Amino acid sequence: MARALQLAALAEGRTSPNPLVGAVVLDAGGQLVGEGFHARAGGPHAEVGALAQAGERARGGTLIVTLEPCCHHGRTPPCCEAVIAAGIARVVLAMADPHPLVAGGGIARLRAAGLEVIEGVMEAEARRRNHAFLHRVATGRPLGILKWAMSLDGRTALPNGVSQWISGPKARGWVHRLRARCDAVIVGGGTLRADDPLLTSRGQRTPEPLRVVLSRSLDLPTQARLWNGAAPSLLAHGPDIPAERTDLLVRLAQQGIDIAALPACEPAALMEELARRGCNRVLWECGPALAAAALRQDCVHAVAAVVAPRLLGGQPARTPLGNLGHTSLAETRLWPLAQVGMIGDDLLCWALPSAGAFP
Amino acid sequence: MARALQLAALAEGRTSPNPLVGAVVLDAGGQLVGEGFHARAGGPHAEVGALAQAGERARGGTLIVTLEPCCHHGRTPPCCEAVIAAGIARVVLAMADPHPLVAGGGIARLRAAGLEVIEGVMEAEARRRNHAFLHRVATGRPLGILKWAMSLDGRTALPNGVSQWISGPKARGWVHRLRARCDAVIVGGGTLRADDPLLTSRGQRTPEPLRVVLSRSLDLPTQARLWNGAAPSLLAHGPDIPAERTDLLVRLAQQGIDIAALPACEPAALMEELARRGCNRVLWECGPALAAAALRQDCVHAVAAVVAPRLLGGQPARTPLGNLGHTSLAETRLWPLAQVGMIGDDLLCWALPSAGAFP
Repeated sequence: MARALQLAALAEGRTSPNPLVGAVVLDAGGQLVGEGFHARAGGPHAEVGALAQAGERARGGTLIVTLEPCCHHGRTPPCCEAVIAAGIARVVLAMADPHPLVAGGGIARLRAAGLEVIEGVMEAEARRRNHAFLHRVATGRPLGILKWAMSLDGRTALPNGVSQWISGPKARGWVHRLRARCDAVIVGGGTLRADDPLLTSRGQRTPEPLRVVLSRSLDLPTQARLWNGAAPSLLAHGPDIPAERTDLLVRLAQQGIDIAALPACEPAALMEELARRGCNRVLWECGPALAAAALRQDCVHAVAAVVAPRLLGGQPARTPLGNLGHTSLAETRLWPLAQVGMIGDDLLCWALPSAGAFP
Repeated sequence: MARALQLAALAEGRTSPNPLVGAVVLDAGGQLVGEGFHARAGGPHAEVGALAQAGERARGGTLIVTLEPCCHHGRTPPCCEAVIAAGIARVVLAMADPHPLVAGGGIARLRAAGLEVIEGVMEAEARRRNHAFLHRVATGRPLGILKWAMSLDGRTALPNGVSQWISGPKARGWVHRLRARCDAVIVGGGTLRADDPLLTSRGQRTPEPLRVVLSRSLDLPTQARLWNGAAPSLLAHGPDIPAERTDLLVRLAQQGIDIAALPACEPAALMEELARRGCNRVLWECGPALAAAALRQDCVHAVAAVVAPRLLGGQPARTPLGNLGHTSLAETRLWPLAQVGMIGDDLLCWALPSAGAFP
């Protein structure tokens, strides 16, 4: 199972909306004869690859798989039937598939066909690795990570707005790798206007994560690196489109930018839209107002704060978070520091809610 | 010498304006026969205690001492004469005394009397332990530590000003221990008005560090915990005393509060006054405006930032530092993170200037 989990992790960040799945086949004598993993949504499931590799040697053998084999026709045929047809005698599972069309049905089908099924092996580890997928299935929203880079005195820009770069090159490389683990990266119109960010993983994920702008005013530049076609982009807006902005929407749509009209120009509505689009894990890289709104609407499940060894100063200088509406410290939520370490000269602090898991 | 340095450290925080000094005496056969350390300014020097313990066994023996023995009459008679009188044959030193009345004179006196003198043993370690003393002697100002406690999003208060307590009880206990290592703790009038702090080490240092308020307006409460007599307090002000505040000054002076009229109501002038009063190491526990002024006037040599695992939010909420006058990131000074660790649930970050030593 440890090997199956390793195999599953090879596709980290590339299987959404599907979970990570790895599988191993042992022959009747216990020899390893096949390995497989789910590499991308729409591609073959892990069991199919492992069984194909094993061939006839699977007969009478054991399938070890991190997720319950599916029993429904999706983009690929049901894996249970392939497992049974291969002559597997025993299936060892880490966890049941929470998908409503499976949810124990695969296990029942295998047992009905006379196979021995052992459940729950290394289940906690398997759930941890598919934390974002499980969160999306359970809540209908992706798991949200809020990331910012600030000075030691808590500033994300100088008083005059200058912010590039507060953190060092190693921390910026880490941000690219973090994006590669996410299905979408979100900014607001203010960040687009101020920073003209590229928001890609710099080629560390294929396809690149969806670049999302949430804008109420649609007061956006016609030229921006986000409209460059280097990666998919989505412009999300609320129900009211200012008349003078309809031209921009039409032009951006013609350029291949996806447009999403949300029922409300709010983080929660955006999260539901992104879940529908198959996002398991999203990254908030936005300014203080949108970050505070995302926190208030419970769209943030982990905070990654990069602390740079500089002092910027200045009460008017930008800070990570706008108003959260607290009037006493007892109201403020605890965000325990789950992991702290250096990235080059910068400090990275991961804070998770008290009952939270690592994203 | 390692033992002598250990002995010296027993008086950490209690010898100002003097340095920490420890001494060990070995007899002619190399046996340890005496130990001593300088416990407080005005008290006996380390050598005197160690020689007294050794008595006649010092004759023909070795004195190992962390600092050059003095050769001048200060509050105590010159140690060189006591060393010579005890019949010591050899003196091993970590470092010369930078005091202008000594500065090699002690070493010359010992050699002139026929003693062997070995210099520079563990000198780097000895200098490190007396860093604050050496800084004050070299610059005429105490070493300054700037400490603040902030939320993970860089706030030192909620938007409504509430700030007690952002950090947890263990971090607050650490602040008391930090104060015990300092000769003075400094706030501005704003902090006195807003927080009415006690600013003591809670008995961990005798005497308590000097509690200092720097106030231009002298718009201060007549009742405050700082005027309570539980520890010495100093009110420092600039050359202009608002007429309506003279009564307060008189009343506070009658209550035993020290009053210092500075040539300018500025951190640099306060540092010179505190050096004259024998302070080697001071702690800035002030609000953002005074903290920024202290940084701008080069009165801060280490930053200790406590980061609490909370998100406070709110652009108007107080932050650690007021304006530092930077308009580009290239102008901002690097404050490398020299030590990072948890204190209870809070994170403590020590930042030192690139060439800085631990305070």
